[in-house]
Amino acid sequence: MTEIDRLELGKKTLNMVDGPAADNVMNSLKDIAPDVGKYIFEWAFSDIYNRPELDLKQREMITIATLLTQGDTAAQLKVHINGSLNVGLTKEEIVETFIHCLPYVGFPKVLNAINVAREVFND
Amino acid sequence: MTEIDRLELGKKTLNMVDGPAADNVMNSLKDIAPDVGKYIFEWAFSDIYNRPELDLKQREMITIATLLTQGDTAAQLKVHINGSLNVGLTKEEIVETFIHCLPYVGFPKVLNAINVAREVFND
Amino acid sequence: MTEIDRLELGKKTLNMVDGPAADNVMNSLKDIAPDVGKYIFEWAFSDIYNRPELDLKQREMITIATLLTQGDTAAQLKVHINGSLNVGLTKEEIVETFIHCLPYVGFPKVLNAINVAREVFND
Amino acid sequence: MTEIDRLELGKKTLNMVDGPAADNVMNSLKDIAPDVGKYIFEWAFSDIYNRPELDLKQREMITIATLLTQGDTAAQLKVHINGSLNVGLTKEEIVETFIHCLPYVGFPKVLNAINVAREVFND
Amino acid sequence: MTEIDRLELGKKTLNMVDGPAADNVMNSLKDIAPDVGKYIFEWAFSDIYNRPELDLKQREMITIATLLTQGDTAAQLKVHINGSLNVGLTKEEIVETFIHCLPYVGFPKVLNAINVAREVFND
Amino acid sequence: MTEIDRLELGKKTLNMVDGPAADNVMNSLKDIAPDVGKYIFEWAFSDIYNRPELDLKQREMITIATLLTQGDTAAQLKVHINGSLNVGLTKEEIVETFIHCLPYVGFPKVLNAINVAREVFND
Repeated sequence: MTEIDRLELGKKTLNMVDGPAADNVMNSLKDIAPDVGKYIFEWAFSDIYNRPELDLKQREMITIATLLTQGDTAAQLKVHINGSLNVGLTKEEIVETFIHCLPYVGFPKVLNAINVAREVFND
Repeated sequence: MTEIDRLELGKKTLNMVDGPAADNVMNSLKDIAPDVGKYIFEWAFSDIYNRPELDLKQREMITIATLLTQGDTAAQLKVHINGSLNVGLTKEEIVETFIHCLPYVGFPKVLNAINVAREVFND
Repeated sequence: MTEIDRLELGKKTLNMVDGPAADNVMNSLKDIAPDVGKYIFEWAFSDIYNRPELDLKQREMITIATLLTQGDTAAQLKVHINGSLNVGLTKEEIVETFIHCLPYVGFPKVLNAINVAREVFND
Repeated sequence: MTEIDRLELGKKTLNMVDGPAADNVMNSLKDIAPDVGKYIFEWAFSDIYNRPELDLKQREMITIATLLTQGDTAAQLKVHINGSLNVGLTKEEIVETFIHCLPYVGFPKVLNAINVAREVFND
Repeated sequence: MTEIDRLELGKKTLNMVDGPAADNVMNSLKDIAPDVGKYIFEWAFSDIYNRPELDLKQREMITIATLLTQGDTAAQLKVHINGSLNVGLTKEEIVETFIHCLPYVGFPKVLNAINVAREVFND
Repeated sequence: MTEIDRLELGKKTLNMVDGPAADNVMNSLKDIAPDVGKYIFEWAFSDIYNRPELDLKQREMITIATLLTQGDTAAQLKVHINGSLNVGLTKEEIVETFIHCLPYVGFPKVLNAINVAREVFND
C-alpha cells in the first residue's frame, strides 16, 4: 500500500469510529506535531484497525479496556466511548466492559471511566 | 444468593475458564491468605463473571487486554491466555487483541504479552 | 452473612469513613452502574473494611498511600483524605504518609497528593 | 557540603531551570509540607541536578520523558517544558522528545504531553 | 546535621529495618552507582525515616502498600516484608495490608505481593 | 517512501542500534506475530528513529528513561542499554540517566534499571 493509500484508509476508518472528534484531534496537532496525526491515520487507524482478525466492535471494546487500565486518559476515553457507540456497542456493553475490569484494576480506575461514560451518554 | 451459592457458582465458573490453573492459585493461597481465594470465587468469578451483559469470550478478551496494559502480570496472563483458549478464542484472536493494544500502550508491553502467549501456545 | 446484611454493614462502615461523600458516589452510580455501588458496599466496605486484623486508621493510611501511588486518583484521594480525618488521623499523619512515599514514588505523585490535601484541609 | 550550602545551591539551580514556577511550587508547600520543598532544593536540585555527568539540556530532556511516561503529571510537565526552554532546548526538540516516546508508551500519553506543550508555547 | 551524621544515621536506621538485606543492596551498588547507595542512606533512611510523625511500623506498612501498588517491585517487597517483620509487624498484619489494597488495585498486584510474602515467610 | 524502503531503512537503523539483539526479537516474533516485527522496522525504527530533530544518542537516552519509568521492561532495557553503548553513550552517561530519574520515579525503578545495566556491563 502506498503512503497516500494508508493515509486515506486511516482517515476513512478513523472517521467511521470517531466522527467529528477525530477531526478535533487532528486539527489540534496541525501546528505543533502534524506527523503525530499522520501516524495516527497511517499506522493506528490504517495498518492496525483494518486487520481482519477482529471487528470494530471488538477493537473498541479492547480500546476502552486498555484506556481505563492505564489511567490519565479521560480525553481519549471520551473519544472512544463515543467511538464504541458509533460502531454499535450498546451503553450496557460499554459500562459492562468497565465493570469486568473491577477485579483486575480495582474501583478507582473503573469509577473514573464510568464518570467519563456518564458525561458522554448525557451529551 | 447465599454465601455458599456464590462460592459454588464462582468455583464452577473459574473451573470453566481456567481449569487446573485455578486450583493452583487457590491452593497457593490456602495457607497464607485463604480469604483472597474466597473473594476470587465469590466476587470475581461469581458476581462479576456471571453477569449477562457480556459472554465469556468477550470477558477473557477484556481480561487479557487489561492484564497486558497494567504490566507485571505474566503469571496472570498465563492463566488467562489459557482461559481464553478454554472459552473458545483462537490463538489468532488472542494475539490480535495484543496487537490492537500497540497504538495505546506501545511495543514493550505488547512484546511481553506475546512472549507469554508463545509459552502457553507451546505447552 | 446474607446479601442484605453485607449491604447494611457496608453502608454503615462507608458512612463512618466517608460520611456525605459516600452518598455522592452512590448517587452518581445509581443511573449508570448501580451494581458498582452495591459491590462497594457489600465487598469493599463490608467484607474487607470489617476484617479485624487492622483498624480503620491503619486502613485509611494504607488507602491514601495506594491511591497516591497509582496516580490519576484525585477524586478518590479527596474522599479518603476526608475519611482519614473522620477516623482520627491528624493532618500531620496524613501529610507524613505522603512524605514517606517520596523515596518510593518520587516527587510528582507526592506533590499531587499534597495539593489534594491542601484543598480538603482548606474546606 | 553543609545543609545551608545544599539549600542555596538547590535554590540557584531550580531558579535557573524553572524561574518563577519554582517559587510557586515552594510557596504552595510552605504551609502544609515545607520539608518537601526543602528536599526539592537540597536533594533534587542540589545533589542530583549538579552532578557533572549530564548537562541541564540533557537533564530536562530526560525529565520530560519520564514525566510523560508516568502520566498524571500535567502540572509538572508544564514546569519542566518551561524549564526545557529556559535551559536552551528548542520547541522542536521538546516535541520530538515526546514523539520519540510513541513506540514505547503509545499515543495517549504522547497526546497528553503535546497538549501541555501547546499551552506552554502559547503563553 | 552534617553529611557524615546523615550517612551514619541512615546506616543505623536502614540496618534496624533491613538488616543484612541492606548490606546486599549497598554492596551491589558499590561498583556501578555508589552515590545511589549514599542517597538511600542520607536521604531515604536518614532524613525521611527518622521524621517523628510516624513510627517504623507505620512506615513499613505504608512502604509495602506503595511497593505493591506500583508493581514490578518483587525485589524491594522482599526486603521490606523482611523489614516489616523486623520492626514488629506480624505476618497477619502484612498480609492484611495487601488484602486491604484489593478494592483499590485489583487481584493481580495483590496476588503478586502475597507470592513474595510466602517466599519470605518460608525462609 | 515505499513499504519496502521503510522496511529496509528500519532494518538498517535497528541493526545500527541493537545489532544481534534486534535479530533475536525479530526471530522470536516470526512464528507468532510477524507483523509486530514489521511495525517495529517500518514505523519505530524507520519513521520515528530517522527523524532529523534528535540524534541516536539522544534517542537512546530518552528510550532508557521511558523504559525505566514504565517498569516491567527488563528485557527491553537490556536491548537498549546495549543500544546506548552501540550509539556512543558511555556507561557513566547511562547510569547517570537512571540517577537523574530518582526524584521523579523513586528508588525502586532506578534500582531495577541499575541491576539490568550491571548485567549488560558485565557481559
